Amino acid sequence: MIRIGIIGVGTVGTSVAEILESNRDIICARAGKEIVVKKGVVRDLSRQRTIDIPLTDNVDDVLDDPEIDIIVELMGGVEEPYAVVKKALQNGKAVVTANKALLAYHRYELQEVAGELPFEFEASVAGGIPIIKALREGLSANHIESIKGIINGTANYILTKMMNEGADFTPVLKEAQALGYAEADPTFDIGGFDAAHKLLILASIAYGIETKPEDILIEGIESVTQDDISFAKEFGYTLKLLGIAKKVGDYVELRVHPALVPQRQMIAKVDGVMNGISVIGDKVGETMYYGPGAGGDATASAVISDIIAIARGGKSSPMLGFKRPLESGLVLLERDAVVTKYYLRLKVADRPGVLAKVSQVMGEQNISIETMLQKPARGDAATLLLSTHACKERAMQDALKDLFRLDSVKERPVMIRIED
Amino acid sequence: MIRIGIIGVGTVGTSVAEILESNRDIICARAGKEIVVKKGVVRDLSRQRTIDIPLTDNVDDVLDDPEIDIIVELMGGVEEPYAVVKKALQNGKAVVTANKALLAYHRYELQEVAGELPFEFEASVAGGIPIIKALREGLSANHIESIKGIINGTANYILTKMMNEGADFTPVLKEAQALGYAEADPTFDIGGFDAAHKLLILASIAYGIETKPEDILIEGIESVTQDDISFAKEFGYTLKLLGIAKKVGDYVELRVHPALVPQRQMIAKVDGVMNGISVIGDKVGETMYYGPGAGGDATASAVISDIIAIARGGKSSPMLGFKRPLESGLVLLERDAVVTKYYLRLKVADRPGVLAKVSQVMGEQNISIETMLQKPARGDAATLLLSTHACKERAMQDALKDLFRLDSVKERPVMIRIED
Repeated sequence: MIRIGIIGVGTVGTSVAEILESNRDIICARAGKEIVVKKGVVRDLSRQRTIDIPLTDNVDDVLDDPEIDIIVELMGGVEEPYAVVKKALQNGKAVVTANKALLAYHRYELQEVAGELPFEFEASVAGGIPIIKALREGLSANHIESIKGIINGTANYILTKMMNEGADFTPVLKEAQALGYAEADPTFDIGGFDAAHKLLILASIAYGIETKPEDILIEGIESVTQDDISFAKEFGYTLKLLGIAKKVGDYVELRVHPALVPQRQMIAKVDGVMNGISVIGDKVGETMYYGPGAGGDATASAVISDIIAIARGGKSSPMLGFKRPLESGLVLLERDAVVTKYYLRLKVADRPGVLAKVSQVMGEQNISIETMLQKPARGDAATLLLSTHACKERAMQDALKDLFRLDSVKERPVMIRIED
Repeated sequence: MIRIGIIGVGTVGTSVAEILESNRDIICARAGKEIVVKKGVVRDLSRQRTIDIPLTDNVDDVLDDPEIDIIVELMGGVEEPYAVVKKALQNGKAVVTANKALLAYHRYELQEVAGELPFEFEASVAGGIPIIKALREGLSANHIESIKGIINGTANYILTKMMNEGADFTPVLKEAQALGYAEADPTFDIGGFDAAHKLLILASIAYGIETKPEDILIEGIESVTQDDISFAKEFGYTLKLLGIAKKVGDYVELRVHPALVPQRQMIAKVDGVMNGISVIGDKVGETMYYGPGAGGDATASAVISDIIAIARGGKSSPMLGFKRPLESGLVLLERDAVVTKYYLRLKVADRPGVLAKVSQVMGEQNISIETMLQKPARGDAATLLLSTHACKERAMQDALKDLFRLDSVKERPVMIRIED
């Protein structure tokens, strides 16, 4: 029998306890052992709960319980769970967590503390999709060329609605909040920070690269408008918030931002709250993983798969994928050196000569324009939509500054990267 | 150091040896050990080869070599590899195979012989997609409600071409043969037998059900015409060869056949030679796995991921997913009892009263018609396309016989199942 302690009995913790009960038959058959929740840790013991497990409000009651084999950390946050998980490992317990923020900041310290103890975190990225196992084990023969992930369901829901229904950002966000797909403060999801946490975890497994969220480019979807959507449709793209990890020589690009993605790509077909991750390996080519990235039961499905793996016996894969350092020799590519294609939206004065000036600025940065679309003017301002051939981020950032300095450019230009 | 013997050095075996060499750095870092091909077994030693590994034409040279830890079986066939793999296990060696036919017939005997020895077969289903690990480990908390897989690239290539280019079956098959996507004798792929082998392996892991290919419904794509494609398009479907495993109460449906699939489903978007498998778990909901289902390097990627898992240390999952029998209590649903929707194509005499007769036959079997489309007559025969509401396979088979007996029905009716 395997005894677990659940720290944090919210939506996911409740689902974990419920599924261990309702699917006891299949879980026991697959694990070869009974798995029992010995105790749950909550902040507020007086609150009514739908599940019947022994509860405590003292985390040491589970951390110091010698009968508990596995600690399931579902409390959220960063520093508090770090201390808790560290102590659990020091007490010789296996750990399962769904906490991506914890791992975004402390995964390498935790790997070291864990040593040979099992430490699993399948639920931390893309909820119910077993992407950690796929990357760490299924694709282990490959150098990973790139990962492109739709790994935030809230942002994907909003962008999908904007694409399919022609709605604007703000009302769609409100609708998402009403449906429970977005938080009251949605910054974490729509600003790209949640996706960045998950991306760093995937990048560690693919590349052994140690980075913090502060080190990488993170842009959200707040500035996307129907003008951008219409450009995307016109040129065969769809608009997605992507987490991108890409190997370029001895460097790794890591970035989270909205991107124009060709409609024919499988990742472009991942709609609504669903998640999808495309991984290109040098030998296998492209594989793609699709499923629910959030929700109590879907996340609990991943948490329990980790518990079963531990119950099945021991640890076989190193936590972050590498038994010996190797691709950790790879270095994060600085943002300015990223090369990609760009789409720009400019609000310009509706008068002769503006196009020439815009073209000149781009030319000065050696950026060549691929397509241009001028929307009919409203009042005295026209909207200019254009895409470029590939160029360096530095050149694009300089061009954006120069463009904004032009008299005829009325607002700060909006830029969205194109991922062909 | 881990030493392997490769039995069968064809396309996949050559790729395995090449990748172990070219990706030595990453494989060693992930496995924590060097992995070396000690010897390959071939039928014809005189043939020129592109790789430089020691070769023998005597299989016992590797089976009896005490230095070899893992036998990689890539010889193809059923009974010969069965004897070889059995002996390897009896000699205490771990086994990795990509041989779906072997597993379709002997997986349970082999599981018993293997006991605690690692026996891995990720490459046997859907090539480079890690679907075995996903199902056996990633979704282990779930009762699997259904699996729907596009698991034969040849058939999917042909159907995709027919859908997208309006081409007929025979020329597209010839083109696939010229491109190397189809064998000279394509029966195994287009007849559904290859997909059936893979489906049985997935069904064992999902349900613990022991079945042989002869036990299940297998239909190929040979009879599909542009009439069927045009009906599919008209009603928002696409046409796919599916391997389907579905739990219905205490029964499991297992069947391989062409199916009309709603275009909005992710599985419908898997085109060309690519494979895709949609799995619905009772807790996680739908997840989908997409990638290359064949090819030397993609298949070798899966073979090597198994070798790395074994090198990483020991066996953690039971070969076929269950440490204790459980869902093996499930029984195969007999074909006649399958309930689904159907599409029919009838060549009928172009005269009054035919529709009434067809409707009458369907009514006698209690089958209700959902949509009907009559194509303009060519000569004295018209084509009648119709779809039904859900009914039992038995009723449909009886209706098909009765329809064919009608004077006004000119050819054996063609039936394709609809998977909504």
